[in-house]
Amino acid sequence: MSAMPDRIRQAAQRAQADLADETTPLLRNAWYVAALAPEVSRQPLARRLVDIPVVLYRREDGRAVALEDRCAHRSFPLSRGQVVGDNLVCGYHGACYGADGRCTRVPSQAQVPPGAVVRSFPLIETGALLWIWPGDPALADPALLPAQPWMSDAGWASSTERLHLRASHVRLHENLLDLTHLSFLHANSFGTPDYASAPFETVLDEAAGRFSLHRTVSPTRLPPLWAVPTGLGGVDAARVVSSSFLSPALHVVAVKFYACALPEDAQPARAIRTAHLVTPESATRTHYFIQHARNFALDDAEITRFMHQQLLQAFQEDVDGLEAIETLLAGYPARQPEISFHADKASLAMRRWLKRQAEAEALSRAG
Amino acid sequence: MSAMPDRIRQAAQRAQADLADETTPLLRNAWYVAALAPEVSRQPLARRLVDIPVVLYRREDGRAVALEDRCAHRSFPLSRGQVVGDNLVCGYHGACYGADGRCTRVPSQAQVPPGAVVRSFPLIETGALLWIWPGDPALADPALLPAQPWMSDAGWASSTERLHLRASHVRLHENLLDLTHLSFLHANSFGTPDYASAPFETVLDEAAGRFSLHRTVSPTRLPPLWAVPTGLGGVDAARVVSSSFLSPALHVVAVKFYACALPEDAQPARAIRTAHLVTPESATRTHYFIQHARNFALDDAEITRFMHQQLLQAFQEDVDGLEAIETLLAGYPARQPEISFHADKASLAMRRWLKRQAEAEALSRAG
Amino acid sequence: MSAMPDRIRQAAQRAQADLADETTPLLRNAWYVAALAPEVSRQPLARRLVDIPVVLYRREDGRAVALEDRCAHRSFPLSRGQVVGDNLVCGYHGACYGADGRCTRVPSQAQVPPGAVVRSFPLIETGALLWIWPGDPALADPALLPAQPWMSDAGWASSTERLHLRASHVRLHENLLDLTHLSFLHANSFGTPDYASAPFETVLDEAAGRFSLHRTVSPTRLPPLWAVPTGLGGVDAARVVSSSFLSPALHVVAVKFYACALPEDAQPARAIRTAHLVTPESATRTHYFIQHARNFALDDAEITRFMHQQLLQAFQEDVDGLEAIETLLAGYPARQPEISFHADKASLAMRRWLKRQAEAEALSRAG
Ligand code: FES
Ligand code: FES
Ligand code: FES
Repeated sequence: MSAMPDRIRQAAQRAQADLADETTPLLRNAWYVAALAPEVSRQPLARRLVDIPVVLYRREDGRAVALEDRCAHRSFPLSRGQVVGDNLVCGYHGACYGADGRCTRVPSQAQVPPGAVVRSFPLIETGALLWIWPGDPALADPALLPAQPWMSDAGWASSTERLHLRASHVRLHENLLDLTHLSFLHANSFGTPDYASAPFETVLDEAAGRFSLHRTVSPTRLPPLWAVPTGLGGVDAARVVSSSFLSPALHVVAVKFYACALPEDAQPARAIRTAHLVTPESATRTHYFIQHARNFALDDAEITRFMHQQLLQAFQEDVDGLEAIETLLAGYPARQPEISFHADKASLAMRRWLKRQAEAEALSRAG
Repeated sequence: MSAMPDRIRQAAQRAQADLADETTPLLRNAWYVAALAPEVSRQPLARRLVDIPVVLYRREDGRAVALEDRCAHRSFPLSRGQVVGDNLVCGYHGACYGADGRCTRVPSQAQVPPGAVVRSFPLIETGALLWIWPGDPALADPALLPAQPWMSDAGWASSTERLHLRASHVRLHENLLDLTHLSFLHANSFGTPDYASAPFETVLDEAAGRFSLHRTVSPTRLPPLWAVPTGLGGVDAARVVSSSFLSPALHVVAVKFYACALPEDAQPARAIRTAHLVTPESATRTHYFIQHARNFALDDAEITRFMHQQLLQAFQEDVDGLEAIETLLAGYPARQPEISFHADKASLAMRRWLKRQAEAEALSRAG
Repeated sequence: MSAMPDRIRQAAQRAQADLADETTPLLRNAWYVAALAPEVSRQPLARRLVDIPVVLYRREDGRAVALEDRCAHRSFPLSRGQVVGDNLVCGYHGACYGADGRCTRVPSQAQVPPGAVVRSFPLIETGALLWIWPGDPALADPALLPAQPWMSDAGWASSTERLHLRASHVRLHENLLDLTHLSFLHANSFGTPDYASAPFETVLDEAAGRFSLHRTVSPTRLPPLWAVPTGLGGVDAARVVSSSFLSPALHVVAVKFYACALPEDAQPARAIRTAHLVTPESATRTHYFIQHARNFALDDAEITRFMHQQLLQAFQEDVDGLEAIETLLAGYPARQPEISFHADKASLAMRRWLKRQAEAEALSRAG
């Protein structure tokens, strides 16, 4: 009753077995964005990150703290408690925890019992973002932070946003690494019909776990999202895009625009960059943070507002589409394996890499 | 702690093991109603049928198409795409599928990869209904279509409706084959107290998979639903009912009415027929289509409206009751087996037949 | 990656294995409150009790009946039927059940089939409460009823309430046996800061399954809830509390108040008592009935209203907090074991006892 020939199905099944998907264990030894910096305050913030309930708050000097959001005593969510000084006091029986997760006081007794401690997570704040290391703290090397210099550079005007995706982070990474979908999923926002068939090249650095693709669409007409701020509406323009998976937590899309009528170097630099900051909430839920920046018209608040609003509308199309896939698959276990296209080359390499990383991490935990 | 003697419980459990219920695999090699004909248009329609996500649309010449609602590439629901000519274009990366389910174009590459195909389902349109064969297409014999001639006969005035039932289709079939419930579940709509105890006979054709019961309630008083259109209110009348399971997809209830004061053949024929069109959505969810017809007052739109509205109210009582059972059972695994009544004779035969059919189909898939 | 040293974690895990929690089978051989007496009428009432669907109604002479809420025929909820005389008539095909659960009539046939019987549960009505024995009826000894004399004594003015808790009854019992939480969870209602650190003693009667703790907070200032009705606002007062687990279904909190300026016996008796009536709905859902009483100002309806409203607000804080724990734990299987405090002494003994009782009951069912 299958539509697919057996031989092809078996080959496709074998290929798929090597790819990360919603059943692959989540990578914990990595820096992920926990929150936009302004979200964290003296009021505790509850957030599930990489399947761990986490509570975030700030000390009196402003430094952020991330603790496991479960009191060691009777599992009350610490996020329902109160920040007192640099500590977090449980709202059930008043156990008091320091920023290192150690319980320092139990109101009903003189001594703190051994074992009264919750996990405390390494955090780094850079620019508008707060990064967390949900895995083994001994491995939390700041040098591994995937944040890019432009993300906190005054030469780039940027805005941020937080979205939520009821789908696997793997599907979001795949979406970001295959931009042929712009012509279809985003036909009404920033896609153009010539996008899907434009030539592209991929750069796959398996050792570093970096996967990118580069695409030049030229000559093309820019959609309003880009035509309005760049002033390149109604003329033949070039749209030079690179899309890079830099870590399980960060994908950067960088785009340059120029008019075809003049040599590129005779024109002002008009570049935009979007950091897609991907943090698994659970296997099938994803926190999706955005930092969008441009290197021109830095002080034009109206351009910031326009691009932010237009981009968010497009990213919501991704969210809606990926959620539709996740819902479909959850209710359809008897499906065929996926058939891939040439344009999936980078995303297949990325998914194989994610799967191997997850297996290596599982092994190292067991060892 | 059981209320039921052990010996009786064990016998009841053995009997129940032979009966189809919500744990029995769904029959796929059968014609089922996929949709009312006017539901399907140039706009794709998503519908889960027999646990398969299906998308329905019409070709330029009006012929309907049913495809598996999952793109072979990255599982995007094809129902979120666009109909272009006779084809369906995936809304994610633009793969284009013909009415036969074969992918004919991938915009980002010159060739279509092998295996890029989705299932295409046999369809037959008759009168107001669109029938689908969700099983092996090689077995989709049009001669097996359970549609009855009167369902598309101009001598019968009919109206259609689509209901949805959050309960197993087996429970709905059982409800339709045991009309003693009219006196209780429908006490406020089309049931009368004398209905439950009226004599009946059953005709069980196990070979053909057809099970009916025939009941004459006479003399009786007709409820408004039947008294108003037939003009037989306030007098002794006969109500002659046959109720027939004709296939897993179709149950027909046929009723004749006449006044007891005169010989039957001295009176106008006043008959109504209701096709209960039963399509499992999943093991515990059912699409419930209705076609209701009469052979008198064919052009009286007010009678059509009155009977449609009254009947729907009664069928909603069935839906509510069956959903209450499904909910109860889902939360009560430690229950006793069912105890059957004489009136269940036809429905027990039907459930044994459904179970044997499902086992045979499972065997033929494995073989 | 754990915050807790291995040795401590292993010891804590061993200790926790002996404690009842949401995975422990529910005790059925016990009297539980099924309903507040006025809830039960000639209109059938559906309620899930100890994982059994139950229907409650009253006979013509007012005596309450509790039957399994599932017709022996096709599992229709009997609570959707009608009370006729002393019987309950199924709303699907009209099977008629007596108060003893035996089916006495099937409308469509002359004889009632053997096995057509549903469970009937022993009930006792005392004061405002209706108690049910969901286990083996042969063991339903009225002498085991945990109701206390004051609960139906005219010398105590009382009010009742029904709450619902989406959490395990074990967590509610634990909450009631560890009142150090008043200073934190109830900081805004009836807790005061000195409560958590006040000295207490516990009385553990493992043989009888009774566990209490006694605490005197003195001198203290009473919160408005107690200060207003007792007239002891703004002065040093004593608050003498005992909190007792008397059965899996009943916990009584008894409090006395007096001014510190005078000897206790020179002052009017001002006592309040609250029966916390705990009935598992399922492993993680709990019916939570309250009877609150005082032995002073018996006829002052305004005091009744004031205390009822204030107490309910406080109990809602417990409900919210316990539900937050249940939700957290359901989504966090990879957690550390609980670390206990000295104040948990009585609740640990109670949880060990509940676990042993459940194991004994499981054994006796199997034997
Ligand atoms: S649960 Fe946090 S102190 Fe008890
Ligand atoms: S998912 Fe349909 S073309 Fe990619
Ligand atoms: S289900 Fe109760 S009489 Fe049939």
